[in-house]
Amino acid sequence: MEKILINPIGVIRSPLRDRSQAPKQGREGQVEGRLVIGEKYREAMLGINAGMSITILYWLHLADRTRMKVHPRGNLSAALKGVFATRSPHRPNPIAVDEVKVMSVDGNTIYVRGLDALDGTPLLDIKCCLRDVSFKF
Amino acid sequence: MEKILINPIGVIRSPLRDRSQAPKQGREGQVEGRLVIGEKYREAMLGINAGMSITILYWLHLADRTRMKVHPRGNLSAALKGVFATRSPHRPNPIAVDEVKVMSVDGNTIYVRGLDALDGTPLLDIKCCLRDVSFKF
Repeated sequence: MEKILINPIGVIRSPLRDRSQAPKQGREGQVEGRLVIGEKYREAMLGINAGMSITILYWLHLADRTRMKVHPRGNLSAALKGVFATRSPHRPNPIAVDEVKVMSVDGNTIYVRGLDALDGTPLLDIKCCLRDVSFKF
Repeated sequence: MEKILINPIGVIRSPLRDRSQAPKQGREGQVEGRLVIGEKYREAMLGINAGMSITILYWLHLADRTRMKVHPRGNLSAALKGVFATRSPHRPNPIAVDEVKVMSVDGNTIYVRGLDALDGTPLLDIKCCLRDVSFKF
């Protein structure tokens, strides 16, 4: 398979400075922070407004990309699982998917709540709206 | 920001051959297909079993990465929106996030239902389980 080259669209600014402060599952986080979007992508922000929920994709730059199995949630008494059967940050392509709430937008900065990412995390994409997959299956 | 290099973990095999066959929103798809995982990532599949819902991330290799605004759902009478305020496939880093149901697993192949991706789409990641974000906000 051909390699894919990604340019981050921006960076996440967060009060979380290291992994010991980060929640194990995104649903546990209520942190406020900022998405600072690169100038060349500013046009693509049109329509992002306060009150919206957005999906953000970001690159877990501290993850171990060589890890193939983990103890779920770091629990050593739990059986090892393949990383694809978990939500571990450690995986070959550590792309996180999370939902955050937009508090406000100022120029190229989106202020959000519900963030779990560490400060300095590369932001890869923003998509609108929560997905409702409940009626798909 | 530093560029990020991604090696796909596999490829999606699907009966959908071109974009005219692909649903506009993932929730509309009920297509069956296969996730064919690269041999070096096979260990990471441990624990993926029939009946599970998995989140898949894939690269929309036919997307226009230069497009910054779109008419939502291709409706030309709708106002232009920035791609980050939509779920358009066209965006700087066209990474799709979808949920599929595992029908069976055979060696390095995961048979799934609820697929929306075109045949030959590079697969970037698999994560376990639907996310429940309903109580986060």
